[in-house]
Amino acid sequence: MRKSVRQLLPCRLLLLLLLLLPLLAPAQSITRLNPTNWWVGMKDPKVQLLVYGPQAGTLTYTVNYPGVTLVKASTVENPNYAFLDLTIAPNTRPGTVRLTGRNGRTLVTQKWELRARDNRPKGQGVTDADFIYLAMPDRFANGDPRNDKFADLADPNADRANPFMRHGGDLQGAAQHLNYLKELGVTAVWLTPVIENNQPLTDEGGTMRSAYHGYGFTDHYSVDKRLGGNAAYLNFVQNAHSLGLKVVQDAVYNHIGINHWFVKDLPSKDWLHQWPTYTNTSYRQQPITDPHSAKIDRLVTTDGWFVPFLPDLNQQNPYVANFLIQHALWSVEMFGVDAWRIDTYMYNDQPFMNRCNAALLAEYPSIHIFGESSVNNVVDQAYYVRNKIDFPFKSNQPGALDFVLENGMLAGLRETGTPAATSWDGGAQKVYQALAQDAVYQDPSKLVTFLDNHDHNRYLSEVGEDVAKYKMGLTWLLTTRGIPSMYYGTEILMKNYKDPSDAEVRRDFPGGFAGDKQNKFTTAGRTPAENDAFNFVRTLATYRRDHPALSSGQLMQYLPENGLYVYFRYDAAGTVMVATNTTDKPASLPTARFTERMSGFSKARNVLTGEAVADLTTLQLPAQTAVVLELGK
Amino acid sequence: MRKSVRQLLPCRLLLLLLLLLPLLAPAQSITRLNPTNWWVGMKDPKVQLLVYGPQAGTLTYTVNYPGVTLVKASTVENPNYAFLDLTIAPNTRPGTVRLTGRNGRTLVTQKWELRARDNRPKGQGVTDADFIYLAMPDRFANGDPRNDKFADLADPNADRANPFMRHGGDLQGAAQHLNYLKELGVTAVWLTPVIENNQPLTDEGGTMRSAYHGYGFTDHYSVDKRLGGNAAYLNFVQNAHSLGLKVVQDAVYNHIGINHWFVKDLPSKDWLHQWPTYTNTSYRQQPITDPHSAKIDRLVTTDGWFVPFLPDLNQQNPYVANFLIQHALWSVEMFGVDAWRIDTYMYNDQPFMNRCNAALLAEYPSIHIFGESSVNNVVDQAYYVRNKIDFPFKSNQPGALDFVLENGMLAGLRETGTPAATSWDGGAQKVYQALAQDAVYQDPSKLVTFLDNHDHNRYLSEVGEDVAKYKMGLTWLLTTRGIPSMYYGTEILMKNYKDPSDAEVRRDFPGGFAGDKQNKFTTAGRTPAENDAFNFVRTLATYRRDHPALSSGQLMQYLPENGLYVYFRYDAAGTVMVATNTTDKPASLPTARFTERMSGFSKARNVLTGEAVADLTTLQLPAQTAVVLELGK
Repeated sequence: MRKSVRQLLPCRLLLLLLLLLPLLAPAQSITRLNPTNWWVGMKDPKVQLLVYGPQAGTLTYTVNYPGVTLVKASTVENPNYAFLDLTIAPNTRPGTVRLTGRNGRTLVTQKWELRARDNRPKGQGVTDADFIYLAMPDRFANGDPRNDKFADLADPNADRANPFMRHGGDLQGAAQHLNYLKELGVTAVWLTPVIENNQPLTDEGGTMRSAYHGYGFTDHYSVDKRLGGNAAYLNFVQNAHSLGLKVVQDAVYNHIGINHWFVKDLPSKDWLHQWPTYTNTSYRQQPITDPHSAKIDRLVTTDGWFVPFLPDLNQQNPYVANFLIQHALWSVEMFGVDAWRIDTYMYNDQPFMNRCNAALLAEYPSIHIFGESSVNNVVDQAYYVRNKIDFPFKSNQPGALDFVLENGMLAGLRETGTPAATSWDGGAQKVYQALAQDAVYQDPSKLVTFLDNHDHNRYLSEVGEDVAKYKMGLTWLLTTRGIPSMYYGTEILMKNYKDPSDAEVRRDFPGGFAGDKQNKFTTAGRTPAENDAFNFVRTLATYRRDHPALSSGQLMQYLPENGLYVYFRYDAAGTVMVATNTTDKPASLPTARFTERMSGFSKARNVLTGEAVADLTTLQLPAQTAVVLELGK
Repeated sequence: MRKSVRQLLPCRLLLLLLLLLPLLAPAQSITRLNPTNWWVGMKDPKVQLLVYGPQAGTLTYTVNYPGVTLVKASTVENPNYAFLDLTIAPNTRPGTVRLTGRNGRTLVTQKWELRARDNRPKGQGVTDADFIYLAMPDRFANGDPRNDKFADLADPNADRANPFMRHGGDLQGAAQHLNYLKELGVTAVWLTPVIENNQPLTDEGGTMRSAYHGYGFTDHYSVDKRLGGNAAYLNFVQNAHSLGLKVVQDAVYNHIGINHWFVKDLPSKDWLHQWPTYTNTSYRQQPITDPHSAKIDRLVTTDGWFVPFLPDLNQQNPYVANFLIQHALWSVEMFGVDAWRIDTYMYNDQPFMNRCNAALLAEYPSIHIFGESSVNNVVDQAYYVRNKIDFPFKSNQPGALDFVLENGMLAGLRETGTPAATSWDGGAQKVYQALAQDAVYQDPSKLVTFLDNHDHNRYLSEVGEDVAKYKMGLTWLLTTRGIPSMYYGTEILMKNYKDPSDAEVRRDFPGGFAGDKQNKFTTAGRTPAENDAFNFVRTLATYRRDHPALSSGQLMQYLPENGLYVYFRYDAAGTVMVATNTTDKPASLPTARFTERMSGFSKARNVLTGEAVADLTTLQLPAQTAVVLELGK
């Protein structure tokens, strides 16, 4: 037997191998090109095309299109990838570029669209004249029940009865309620990420959860079809723009979903941060800024994974970096978004972040960029934004979410009443002290302020469901420096703690879903208390929107005394005084101390009540109330 | 009658007026010259002489002494003052300068000594190789009972039974116990101010208090005679130097005592900060650094009085500024002190402070200067020291008392045990987080660290009289970055809260006073627990003194995990590991995480117990203990 087998080998084995060859080396085709298209006339004429397909890295590429030059083709560890550096001359004619790859007798072609840039508004930015509304599209409103779930997705579920599953909200639903937001005085909408999250259910502590939050991208160039896909997003932005509302996109650079297509066939091992055994981030920012820190602590912070199902991208890999930067540019150009909120900012490679910010700002000079760095002190908050501290690394990020002020406002509100309001560091001192450290920032007016978000306790619960405190804090938010943002539902008194689960603070907006018994989008659907809250926010937000002194004016704040906290917003056209009585008793406030700002004014109008104040010598402040006065001569 | 009287007038009245003239215009004499002497060969050849005496400002001055030039004579509102700008050529012969003042036929002369500089050590500085001991001379030891009180002083009392009165301690007493301090491992002594405080008793909330604390100067050029006067201070410094100990002088620029001689006859109204009605400082630092602050808040902070009996000096008056700067130089040159602690630093005019610091550093380049700014965040702490923040004003102060780290250590120690030690921001996280913000300082190693002082609760009480916590904190103090300082009596377990009064934390050192039943300066006089504490401090302090790695070596700290906080001090010659278990259970600590610092080391010696550690793979840490290991190969 042995001998006969050996005799068979020379000819029969050869034949067998030839027959098997087409199976061993799959038919060559390009299955993905990223970016999926590009534009003629971008300020940066370069684009790096990621080419993916079986053995795509073994082909020799040519591009034969006037104005488009293939400068360089690169390969990586995985033969299924090629990276093509193209330049697109300014006068190139838009059209379909044909990409050709050859390997011996193999010839593969793929089309790639080169578009003309349009004149739709895009990258308009948000400034302190804006008021941002943050919503989770899955939980806000369901405009198209046909797209709630798809059997071909890794998570085919949708179940409104289960707080951890998708509920079916979508971009069409959000678009249908833009008028509601405009009525509220909102000027910009920030949705949690809309990009495809074709993630499986994850088991978190025994609870199966869907990826409805959106922070695990699986294909950068597709908006999740459960939200309506790319067309619905484009439509949402255009609807918003037609109403004069801006759109903030929620970007994620640090990680992708475990089901991202390129995670299933990694271009190279160093595409992700790899560890000998699974290593989670410490969620601690200080190893990055601490001059005494150890390398391992720095690595764990930035290169540890956020959670096991969100692989951590290695932005020091130049192909990863280019991929992410181009996707940012593509998103703004494609959908016309106006501002760019960056998730888990502090976990990113900071030199990469600077490159990415610079690329966006070069293309869209007015765009605003503000990252999420959940830190507990201004030194660390300053590190991730243009600042005045001589750190070894200098961030170029224009803005940031102001976690320090959120902490200060919430802590201060918890400490109103007696005796905390008048204690040495209690009550409004916490707000004052947070703002008083603004010297570390290049421009604190570009920070995005907030009292709640999708990861924190709902604001009303933070203040013990005390409507007086709720109004005080919202008044601070809407009258102090920065770009205010508010989480959906705060205006209708939605409440809850994130303990035992985040889902508690991500409940559906009542009225956004078919069959809802109540519709809080309408005056009639809201209770009197909810209408009072809604109208309170609306009054302040619209006043702010219409009075630049309150949004872009200078801030001058006075040391809180006896639980009374006074500040002014002012410009050449007007002065607004905000006088908060954080104690639980009415107070008289002599105003002689405020001459620097009140000189020349003799009367005022109470912005919230409409009442006239005929004498400014001594103000009467109700207990636990922030009085907003437009000063007059 | 009437007529006759009138007839008398022309000649008799003239005669009467002539007779009265010497009384109306007092006999002209110079009663004070400040500085009381000067030296040839100072780097700055200029000195401004304050001349005080009846009508001193009406005289025309001349100085006839080779090398000494009277450049300018100036007068102020009060005719009893003149200010003479002198220059002293480098080759001037030391001797007695005769100052002559003329006004018509009036001729006044006064002698002024010009000394040769000596070679005694002075301005040696303190560095992180030092360990500072802070004592209040009135409460530390009484070397000369004859100087306890004087009937000719505004406060003629001394009463050891009354915590608010002077107790009689003095410089001779302190000098007699320098050996005790040297034995403890101390290398520098900081006494609360020794300058004359001829202050009256003050009524504070119904309690009559003496000025035993020393912060109300009444004559800058006289050490208080109850402490032994200038001679005793000079002797104290020389004794300290002969033992290799340095001396820190406690300087006060912001205010003087209400009984200061020049307050009784102010040179000009603007010599002090004047207010329409008495205005206290707010004790708040943030109006100074807050870019949003109001002018009135800034003025109240700096120009409001510290207390009613400490008038606030106007350092923007150039004569005040020169007076204070020259006194600083005079003090170092006269007494040979090595470092300069500045009281209430943040209340001073900061441009003045920079001038003053620059003058001291120009003359004594090694001197260390560290101010007291009782702030609650690193941004404000950085403002008053050479920092890396682009504030509109840049301080040139080399050091500062590190209030932020004190807060961090005390808060951390309060939160040891279960569950606080392992909470997100509790226990050692507080210490880690304070140090992790060191990026704001030019050189954090120049900060003076502490756990207690004469204004704070005694350290042992702060940690709930828990000796384990007491040792943990002292270990941090004596092994982390900075220049450690300790308040007298901490080493013998003195305790108390400053509530109801500061006097509670300023009790006499037992054994320092005649008739004391116990003498804690001796081993025999201390209880076993006190000897254990004393020996603990001594062991760490002497180890630190003798091992530069622990004092001047780099710091590397690791993120606390599970209540375990690890850091290293290291230089080319050695590495010391400090591993703290802040939990209330023994812990095993695998050391693989610390490879960056432990690589190459295979064994260790426990500095506190002397035990050898043969295997560094996993360390066994007792509960609530900071283990100090000298690593070996």
